[in-house]
Amino acid sequence: MASLQDIGFSAAINLMSAFAFLFAFAMLRLQPVNDRVYFPKWYLKGIRGSPTRSRGVMNRFVNLDWTTYVKFLNWMPAALRMPEPELIEHAGLDSAVYIRIYLLGLKMFVPITVFAFGVLVPVNWTGETLDKIDDLTFSNVDKLSISNVPPGSPRFWAHLSMTYVFSIWACYVLYMEYKTVATMRLRHLASETRRPDQLTVLVRNVPPDPDESVNEHVEHFFCVNHPDHYLCHQVVYNANDLAKVVAQRKAMQNWVTYYENKYERKPSSRPTTKTGYGGFWGTTVDAIDFYTSKLQNLAEQEAVEREKIMNDPMAIVPAAFVSFRSRWGTAVCAQTQQCHNPTIWLTEWAPEPRDVFWDNLAIPYVELSIRRLLTTIALFFLIFCFMIPIAFVQSLANLEGIQKVLPFLKPLIEMKTVKSVIQGFLPGIALKIFLIILPTLLMTMSQIEGYTSLSYLDRRSAEKYFWFIIVNVFLGSIITGTAFQQLKSFLEQPPTEIPKTVGVSIPMKATFFITYIMVDGWAGIAAEILRLVPLVVINVYDQKYESGARYWPDVHRRLTICLIISQLLMMGLLSTKKLAKVTVLLLPQPILTIWFYRYCAGRFESAFSRFPLQEAMVKDTLEKATEPNLNLKEYLKDAYVHPVFKGKDLDRPRVVDEEESNPLVPTRRTSQATTRYNSEASSTTNTPVANKHSGSPGTM
Amino acid sequence: MASLQDIGFSAAINLMSAFAFLFAFAMLRLQPVNDRVYFPKWYLKGIRGSPTRSRGVMNRFVNLDWTTYVKFLNWMPAALRMPEPELIEHAGLDSAVYIRIYLLGLKMFVPITVFAFGVLVPVNWTGETLDKIDDLTFSNVDKLSISNVPPGSPRFWAHLSMTYVFSIWACYVLYMEYKTVATMRLRHLASETRRPDQLTVLVRNVPPDPDESVNEHVEHFFCVNHPDHYLCHQVVYNANDLAKVVAQRKAMQNWVTYYENKYERKPSSRPTTKTGYGGFWGTTVDAIDFYTSKLQNLAEQEAVEREKIMNDPMAIVPAAFVSFRSRWGTAVCAQTQQCHNPTIWLTEWAPEPRDVFWDNLAIPYVELSIRRLLTTIALFFLIFCFMIPIAFVQSLANLEGIQKVLPFLKPLIEMKTVKSVIQGFLPGIALKIFLIILPTLLMTMSQIEGYTSLSYLDRRSAEKYFWFIIVNVFLGSIITGTAFQQLKSFLEQPPTEIPKTVGVSIPMKATFFITYIMVDGWAGIAAEILRLVPLVVINVYDQKYESGARYWPDVHRRLTICLIISQLLMMGLLSTKKLAKVTVLLLPQPILTIWFYRYCAGRFESAFSRFPLQEAMVKDTLEKATEPNLNLKEYLKDAYVHPVFKGKDLDRPRVVDEEESNPLVPTRRTSQATTRYNSEASSTTNTPVANKHSGSPGTM
Repeated sequence: MASLQDIGFSAAINLMSAFAFLFAFAMLRLQPVNDRVYFPKWYLKGIRGSPTRSRGVMNRFVNLDWTTYVKFLNWMPAALRMPEPELIEHAGLDSAVYIRIYLLGLKMFVPITVFAFGVLVPVNWTGETLDKIDDLTFSNVDKLSISNVPPGSPRFWAHLSMTYVFSIWACYVLYMEYKTVATMRLRHLASETRRPDQLTVLVRNVPPDPDESVNEHVEHFFCVNHPDHYLCHQVVYNANDLAKVVAQRKAMQNWVTYYENKYERKPSSRPTTKTGYGGFWGTTVDAIDFYTSKLQNLAEQEAVEREKIMNDPMAIVPAAFVSFRSRWGTAVCAQTQQCHNPTIWLTEWAPEPRDVFWDNLAIPYVELSIRRLLTTIALFFLIFCFMIPIAFVQSLANLEGIQKVLPFLKPLIEMKTVKSVIQGFLPGIALKIFLIILPTLLMTMSQIEGYTSLSYLDRRSAEKYFWFIIVNVFLGSIITGTAFQQLKSFLEQPPTEIPKTVGVSIPMKATFFITYIMVDGWAGIAAEILRLVPLVVINVYDQKYESGARYWPDVHRRLTICLIISQLLMMGLLSTKKLAKVTVLLLPQPILTIWFYRYCAGRFESAFSRFPLQEAMVKDTLEKATEPNLNLKEYLKDAYVHPVFKGKDLDRPRVVDEEESNPLVPTRRTSQATTRYNSEASSTTNTPVANKHSGSPGTM
Repeated sequence: MASLQDIGFSAAINLMSAFAFLFAFAMLRLQPVNDRVYFPKWYLKGIRGSPTRSRGVMNRFVNLDWTTYVKFLNWMPAALRMPEPELIEHAGLDSAVYIRIYLLGLKMFVPITVFAFGVLVPVNWTGETLDKIDDLTFSNVDKLSISNVPPGSPRFWAHLSMTYVFSIWACYVLYMEYKTVATMRLRHLASETRRPDQLTVLVRNVPPDPDESVNEHVEHFFCVNHPDHYLCHQVVYNANDLAKVVAQRKAMQNWVTYYENKYERKPSSRPTTKTGYGGFWGTTVDAIDFYTSKLQNLAEQEAVEREKIMNDPMAIVPAAFVSFRSRWGTAVCAQTQQCHNPTIWLTEWAPEPRDVFWDNLAIPYVELSIRRLLTTIALFFLIFCFMIPIAFVQSLANLEGIQKVLPFLKPLIEMKTVKSVIQGFLPGIALKIFLIILPTLLMTMSQIEGYTSLSYLDRRSAEKYFWFIIVNVFLGSIITGTAFQQLKSFLEQPPTEIPKTVGVSIPMKATFFITYIMVDGWAGIAAEILRLVPLVVINVYDQKYESGARYWPDVHRRLTICLIISQLLMMGLLSTKKLAKVTVLLLPQPILTIWFYRYCAGRFESAFSRFPLQEAMVKDTLEKATEPNLNLKEYLKDAYVHPVFKGKDLDRPRVVDEEESNPLVPTRRTSQATTRYNSEASSTTNTPVANKHSGSPGTM
C-alpha cells in the first residue's frame, strides 16, 4: 500500500487541479464573450441582455474591471446560500435535486467518517499485529486499517457493531432524503403552470384498421371509450428523412451567413471557396453564390419531402398524442389499460414536447421485445469485454509493469516525485479517459432499446453506466484479469467465497480507491463546472427537459445496492478473520436493507411515476375557476407537432442556430436578433421573480 | 438403480390403487345418501332434488339398481367428451382451466416421450459403456439412460439438439395455452352476468380525519374525486368478536336440533347429556333444556355484541367497499392512484362478496410491510428445516437403512415382494404424508401476511407450496442431508458446480422420481376425486369463489421456472461428460426462456389482473340499453355487508349448517328445508342450460 505521503501528494495534486479549474471557471465566467455559455438559463429567459451589444470593442470580449477578479470565488457561498425554492425557480427541480445528491454524500459520510476516526482508528491502531510480523513492509496507513487487528480478536466486535451503526445511519439518511425529494416533486408538480404534457397521453401501437386511417381510428376509439374527457389528438408523422434535409439546409444557411458577414466586413473582395468536401480542394468558386445555390436546392428538396409526408398516408406512424379536457381524464387514460390486448393501444404520460424522442414512436411490441433482449445481451458483453483495455492500462500504471514494458524509462520512474505522481494519479486518470467515450455508446444502446423520451433514454443509460462502473471499476479493480477471466473466477467460486475474495482485496486496493475518488470527486466535479465541451462545441448548455427529479428512485436504488454490496463485503472480510460464527450476526443486515428498499419503494416511488387523481382534480378545479374561458383546443393544437413542422425550432431558438458556426464573431445582425429574441422571451416568461435574482452571481 | 421389474411392480401397485379409488368413487357416487357430496354444483343450483325425499327407506341410502353399477365408469368418457363451454357453464372457469393443466401435461410430455424413445433411447442403448465396466452392477433401465453413453462421445450431440427441440416444444405449448386461457378468461368476463364486485372497489387505509367519521370521509373523498361515477359505499365493521359468538350460537343450535330429532324419533325418554367439555363428564342433565338455555345465553350475548358494533364508532375499520355507477368508473378507480401518499386511500378491485377475507381489511401499511418481512423469513426457515423429517424418513426407506435401524426385520425385508414394495412405494408415500399437514400451515402464513381475499390467500399459499416442493422434494431428494447442511452445500459450491452436482445425481435418483410421479400423479389424483375429507367432515364440497382462472399466470410462471431448472441441470450433466465446450451451446436456452417468459407476461398477464376500459365501456353500454330502469343502488345495498349481519349466511345456505353435525341421518325437517332452498335457488339461477345436462353422470 502507498504511504501516507503518497496519498497526501495525490490529495494535493487533486485539490490543486480542482482549485485551478474553479479559478479558470471564475475567470472565463467574467468575460462577457462567454456569457451565453455560463448563464444559459438567464439568457433563455431574457433576463440577461447580450453584453456584447453596448460596450466598447475591447470590453465586449474581455472584462477589464479588476474588482470582479478580486472576489472571483464569491459565487460559491452565494450559490450555496441560495434558498432551495429560489434555486428550483431559477435552475429547475432536476438541478436542485442533483445538488442534493452531493449534499447527501456529505450528510451520509461526514458522521460516518467522524465515527470511524473516533472508534475504529484507535481500535485498529493499537492492534499491534503488523509490528509483530517481521518480514512485512507496511506503511503507517496500514496501521490505521483493519489489517492491524489480529485474527479472532474481540476487537472485531467494534467493527461489527459499527457496521450496524453505519447501515442504520445510511438508511435513515436515505429515507429522509427520499421523503424530502418526493415532497419537493409533489410541490413542484402542484405549482407547475399549465403545460401540454399535463393534458396529453402518448398512445402507441394503434392497431391497423382496414376501413379507417390512423387519424380516424384514434378519434373514434377515444370518443367511444373516454367520451366525457377526450378533446383532440395529433398523429405522428415519420419525418426522419425531412428532419435530415432540414438539418442540412440549416448548416448551409450558416455558411451563407458566414460568407455574407465576411463580405460585409471586407467588401473589397468577394470570398471564395472550393467545391470539394469541407472546402479544402476542388475548383475555386464564389462562396456566396455556391452556397446560395446549394441552399436553394436543399430548400426545394425540403419542400418536396414536406409535400410527400403530408400526402402519403404511409407517412403516418401508428402512434398519436391524445389530449383530454382535464388532468383527471389524462391521469385516468395514462394509468389504465385500454384494450383487452395489452400490446395495442398502449398509453403513457406524454413526455414534454421538447423531450420526445421522435424516432422511436412507431416500434411494434414484438420488435421492442426482441430489441430489449438483444440490447441486454450486448450490454452484458460490453460490460465484460470492456475490461480488456482497463486491465491492460492498470497493469501499465503499476510501477513494475512500466519498467518491464518500457525499460528505458527506469531512471525517470525512480525519481521520487515522478513515482508519487504515477502511483497516486495515473490509475485514476487512465480509467477516467476510458470512461469518456462510454456514455455515447450506452446512449446509442438505449436508443436502440426503443424508449420514447430523452429523459427516459438518459435514465436508462445511467442505469447501464451504473452497472458498468460496479463491474468494471469496482470489481474489476479488485480482481484484475482480462475479460471473461473475471466472470469465470466469480462463477467458479462458491457464492460465500466471493465476498471473502473481494473483502480481502479491498484493503489492499485502498490506495486505488482513495485516488479514484479524489480524481473523480474533487478534480472531476470542478472540471465539470468549466463546461469545457459547451465552451468549445455545443455553445449553449441548455437543459433539454425538466423531469421533476424523476430520476430519484434510480439514485435511491443504486445507493441501496451499494450499501448492500458493502455489507456483503464486510461479511466476507470478517469471515476471513477467524470469526465465521460472528459473521452470522451480520446476516440480518442485507435482509433488512432489502426490506428497507422495498418499504421505501412502496412508500414513495409512485410519486415519481404516477399522478394521483386527487391532485389532478385539485388542479382542474383551480384552472376552471381562474380561467373559465380558456380555449384548451387552441392551446394544444400545435404542441405535439414534430419540430420540423414548426415555425421555429423547438430545441433551440433560431438566434442560437445562426451563430453556431461563428461563436466568437458576433455581428450586428446577430445582436439585433438577440434583442428581438430577448424581448419576445421577456414578454412570455414570468420575469418578476427571476429579475429579483439577476444580480446574484452564480448559475449553478 | 431399481430394475425394470421394480418399476413395473410400482406401476402396477399405483395403477391398481388408482383403479380402486375410481371404483370406490363410482360406487359411493351412486348411493343417494352421498348425493350432496358428489353433486354439489347441481345441488346448489337446485337442479338435482334431494334423493332422500321421495323413495323408500332402503332406497334413500343405498342404490339397488344393478344396471347403474355395470356402467359405473361411463362418467369418465362422458366428462371428457363434454364441450368446454358447457364445462365452464357447469363447473366454472376455474375448474375448466384446472383440467386444462392436466391436459397441458399430456400435450407437453406425450410428444417429448415419443421423441425421447424414438431418438434418445436408441442412442443410449447402443452406447455400450456400462457393459465394458466390469465391477459395476447395473440394470436394464440404466442402459436406457444417458449413463450408458461414453464421456466425450459425439452421441451427445443428439442429447444437445433434443434439449432444444424439447425446450422449443414446451415454450410453444405454454404460449398457446396462455393465449387460450387468456381468451377464455376475457370471454368469461364479457359474458358474466352483473355481479356486485364488477361495480365495487375495495378501499383500504382510509386516513383518520379529526372532523369526520370514516363513513363521511369516504363519501366526501369519492364525491370530490370521482364526481361523475361515485354511487355509494359500505363501511367495514370489525365484527370478528361477533362472528365468533355467532359461530358458537350456530354450533349450539345444531346440538339442540340434534337432540330434538333424537327425542322426536324416540319420544319414550328425553335425551340427556353431561355438563363437562364435549358431554363426556360432569353432572347429567336434560340435553334439550341444557342446550336451549345455553343457546339463549349466546343469543343474548350476540344481541349485545351487535348493539356494541352498531353504536361504537371505533368498531368501524378504516376500509370501505365503494361502488360506482358504471364498470368504467370502477375500472378507473381500481387501477389509478388516488392520493399523493401511496400508502393511504389504496384502491383495488373488490373480491366477490363470498371471497372477502374480513379479518385482514384493517391492517395499516407499515404493519403489512413488517408482516411480509417476518413471513418471508419464517417461510425460509420452514423450507429449510422441514428437510429434517423428510431426510430421516428417506434414510429409513432405504433398504440398508431399515436393516440397520431395525435388524430384526431383515428376514421380512429380504423377501422379494416386500423388497419391491419398499423400494417402489415407500419413499413416495412417506413424503406424501408429510405434505398433508403443510397446506394448512402455509395458509396460516398467508393469512398473517395480510391478504384480503380467499382467492389471493390460496394463490399465495400455492406459491409457497411450489417453492417448498422445489427445495424439499426435488432438490432435497437429490442432495440428501439434514436441514441447513443442504443449503450450506449449495452456498459453498461455485454456481457452476450446482447444476453439475444436481445433474449428475438425477439419473441416480431416477427411481425415486418415477415412483413419486406414479404415487402423486396416478393414485393421488384418483384419490382426490373420492373427496374423502368432504365425505367425512366438511359435507359439501362447495366452491368458495370463482376467480376466472386468475391463477393461470402463476401456473405459467412455475412451469417456466421448472423448464429453466431442467435446462440448467442438462447443462450441468453434459459438462460432466467431458463436453465443457459444447455445454456453452446450451447457454442461450435459459436466456431465451427468460425472455420468452417476459414476452408472455407482457403479452397476456394484464388480462388476469386488469380490466380494460374498452370492455368496461361495452358492458356498461349494453346494460344501459337492456335495463335502463335498473336501480343499482338497491342492487348493491347489502352486497358487501359482513356475513354476520346478513339474514342468511353467505358462505353456505342454512340447510347445510343444520345438517352438519348429523350428515348421515337426514330428517323430515331437513328435507323440507332442502326443498325450500332448492325452489328458491331454481327461481334465481339460469336453469335451462344446466338442465340439459342433468342427466349426464359426472360432476368433474
